[in-house]
Amino acid sequence: MRLVAIGGSDAGISAALRARELDPSSEVTVVVADAYPNFSICGIPYYISGEVADWRNLAHRTRQDLEATGMELRLDTRAARIDPETRLVTLQGADAGEELLGYDALIIGTGAVPIRPPIDGLSQLGPDQGVHLLHSMDDTFALSRTLDRDGISRAVIVGAGYIGLEMAEGLTTRGLQVTQLEQLPEVLPTVDARLGALIRDELEHHGVTVHRNTRVEAINPSEDNSAAPLQVHATDQERATRIYPADVVLVVVGVRPDTQLATTAGVELGIKQAIAVDTRMRTNIPAIYAAGDCVVTHHPLLGTTYLPLGTTAHKQGRVAAENALGGNREFAGSLGTQVVKVFDLVAARTGLRDHESQAAGYEPLTVASQADDHKAYYPGSHPIQMHYTADQRDGRLLGLQLLGRLGSEIAKRIDIAATAIHNQMTIDQISDLDLSYTPPLGSPWDALQIGAQNWARAVDLETAGPSSHGGS
Amino acid sequence: MRLVAIGGSDAGISAALRARELDPSSEVTVVVADAYPNFSICGIPYYISGEVADWRNLAHRTRQDLEATGMELRLDTRAARIDPETRLVTLQGADAGEELLGYDALIIGTGAVPIRPPIDGLSQLGPDQGVHLLHSMDDTFALSRTLDRDGISRAVIVGAGYIGLEMAEGLTTRGLQVTQLEQLPEVLPTVDARLGALIRDELEHHGVTVHRNTRVEAINPSEDNSAAPLQVHATDQERATRIYPADVVLVVVGVRPDTQLATTAGVELGIKQAIAVDTRMRTNIPAIYAAGDCVVTHHPLLGTTYLPLGTTAHKQGRVAAENALGGNREFAGSLGTQVVKVFDLVAARTGLRDHESQAAGYEPLTVASQADDHKAYYPGSHPIQMHYTADQRDGRLLGLQLLGRLGSEIAKRIDIAATAIHNQMTIDQISDLDLSYTPPLGSPWDALQIGAQNWARAVDLETAGPSSHGGS
Repeated sequence: MRLVAIGGSDAGISAALRARELDPSSEVTVVVADAYPNFSICGIPYYISGEVADWRNLAHRTRQDLEATGMELRLDTRAARIDPETRLVTLQGADAGEELLGYDALIIGTGAVPIRPPIDGLSQLGPDQGVHLLHSMDDTFALSRTLDRDGISRAVIVGAGYIGLEMAEGLTTRGLQVTQLEQLPEVLPTVDARLGALIRDELEHHGVTVHRNTRVEAINPSEDNSAAPLQVHATDQERATRIYPADVVLVVVGVRPDTQLATTAGVELGIKQAIAVDTRMRTNIPAIYAAGDCVVTHHPLLGTTYLPLGTTAHKQGRVAAENALGGNREFAGSLGTQVVKVFDLVAARTGLRDHESQAAGYEPLTVASQADDHKAYYPGSHPIQMHYTADQRDGRLLGLQLLGRLGSEIAKRIDIAATAIHNQMTIDQISDLDLSYTPPLGSPWDALQIGAQNWARAVDLETAGPSSHGGS
Repeated sequence: MRLVAIGGSDAGISAALRARELDPSSEVTVVVADAYPNFSICGIPYYISGEVADWRNLAHRTRQDLEATGMELRLDTRAARIDPETRLVTLQGADAGEELLGYDALIIGTGAVPIRPPIDGLSQLGPDQGVHLLHSMDDTFALSRTLDRDGISRAVIVGAGYIGLEMAEGLTTRGLQVTQLEQLPEVLPTVDARLGALIRDELEHHGVTVHRNTRVEAINPSEDNSAAPLQVHATDQERATRIYPADVVLVVVGVRPDTQLATTAGVELGIKQAIAVDTRMRTNIPAIYAAGDCVVTHHPLLGTTYLPLGTTAHKQGRVAAENALGGNREFAGSLGTQVVKVFDLVAARTGLRDHESQAAGYEPLTVASQADDHKAYYPGSHPIQMHYTADQRDGRLLGLQLLGRLGSEIAKRIDIAATAIHNQMTIDQISDLDLSYTPPLGSPWDALQIGAQNWARAVDLETAGPSSHGGS
């Protein structure tokens, strides 16, 4: 069995590792476009911040670790075309010409590419001028070189999603003055605006200047030598234009699936132009699987969507490899569980928000409440903000958003909710869970259970109608 | 509807709160033996340590908060007898004689009493001599008075379970020199000895002297005025006697159900002499419910056992009240989920250990492994020790034990496993869970998922037999 994985990031490497584990006789080749297989892209902000001193530490595994499993790595090699009839992939190395690589099963893990928004001047500017997109290790080195130049003190970040926020923290930690521009009405638009506003407070508390409802129209090199080398032109809600001076500009507004190679094989695309796969990670072409940020995402509450996440890529790569080797494993789906640290706060979500639930045909009610992370009498207690979304018809949990302090176990609390949604639990059943308690780390009813009970109370009031509100 | 709850701790107060919430017309009376309703018994070690400055803060709710819900509190009042025919409870106040209180539904929440082990001299000694048991607020005040006396510097703690360990930390934090004596081969005997040994290292690292396999035979007042006022005589594994000098001795070796009142009503007892209840918290006597540390515990994996825990008492009280008011709610069961902080370590467990699973008819395999709490490249990463127990026949998760650093989200990680066991998940399904990830707080495969995969690898080797071990 010759298994070829295209892509040296989470999906491709997970697939290769799993194949070597399941069948030590398999010939496994991973084609890696750059020299950095199995790097933790999510760790880039912490290298930029200086918290990770050596970029090599961002590797989940070293090249030697990977090769010790028996896989072959083809670094600095691009896969240009796939011929599904002859089962050959055309490779292009750095120097050499083309080469053909045969496969019995192929796993496409080409990932995603950063979105380049329609900003005037963006396509003419690049790292040499201090204008950066950020996705690969090469992008990271380029940004690092810019930041190491003399006189780089003012950064403008375009976008305030997960990466934008992590980079705002990272560049602030590194000593830069950061201005963050977000087109939408609030930062971290993947959570409710009330929670996003608390994240914004935290950014501002740490010296980041945040402008919302602000659309970047153009980036220009400055013609005035005494001014900042870059000018970012943006319009606010009232269509007034403001110019933000910058020494470095970072554009991080999301990614789109990289399907260029897949289409050469006739692989069909699905939602958001991502590769269409079934839950076994099979494409429409025999012997061709796909996994990771380049494929559509199966979601237990939504059916099919596009939700590129590293955690999902790992799982999908593993599933793809098992099936490629003749197994029969299904990807259980992604709930879009995510967590982000922004200075001393942590925000997390799993499942659906209210409007997403509505759009998917549920009848959601979302109830905001808060509860302490642990007993208030024990030092260091902080409240956790909770937005619970569940279906009013049957109490089925649809989603949870949490925001709290670093140290409040927000990340693993969202995972309890993810586990509950995975198991189709209702709000009432959350109260039934036997969760741990000791005063320094929790409450007899965990914050999550208090939030669930608050949801149940609110839905009772809702059901009883306005007349009962007075008596409660 | 006249609801009477006997007991002012977790079960009784939870029941009363739930009754007042569900039916504002209900007359709810809580009979409280002391003056401290709704106190957090689990917080006592942190008052003794000095971390909680005012004992009043240990109240989950103040008396005023409770009364504001419309419940009546009868403080310093003992319930002496129940007559189930006439539905009358005989009350004894502090000064007055007896009084009869009628009920339509009664909830017995008398809790547990500390076990007084067969130690020579123990029954003749008490707080005045510096010898303490610890369960109630009055016990707490008595211990506090002893500790406030001049010259109290050497503490001997008999027992190294949850409370014993928390008190070892608490007394050390307060500045005492602590010696801890445990009869069993390792401290924290509710987890595997390998994990208990790490807790012992932590105790010793913080200056606690620990003696295991050490059985306390006698406690004597010293006759020598120049010596410590108390002598604790104990035998070690070789039956050699050692004498430990002490200014204060704390005996914390567990609790037994307090069923004295219940038996006056003809209530039947079950396992460990706890009150027999069904999952609706009904006793064998009509209109009498029971909840909390005085009742048997329903356990999804074991059937019926005795597992007194505050979290469980809260849930059972709530269920009892709902049913007492004509509802139909079942207690979903306890998995014995527990967590304890010992200095800078946290140990937690849920479900069954290997020998407990064996005894209950499962075919367990327990696999120990470790994984980082978050990506090692981000500062402050620490390994989490995991003991996974699952059934070899079907991979069903039976139990998990975790040990790691404070800050490693051990408490909420054990809760993910508790949620998984609640939903009868298998080891493979743990890998499928969509858990959150950001480098400062996790890994693309969470530590729990790495542990689950390690279990699966081990069972594969086990199944394949010894011949495959060489090739793997």
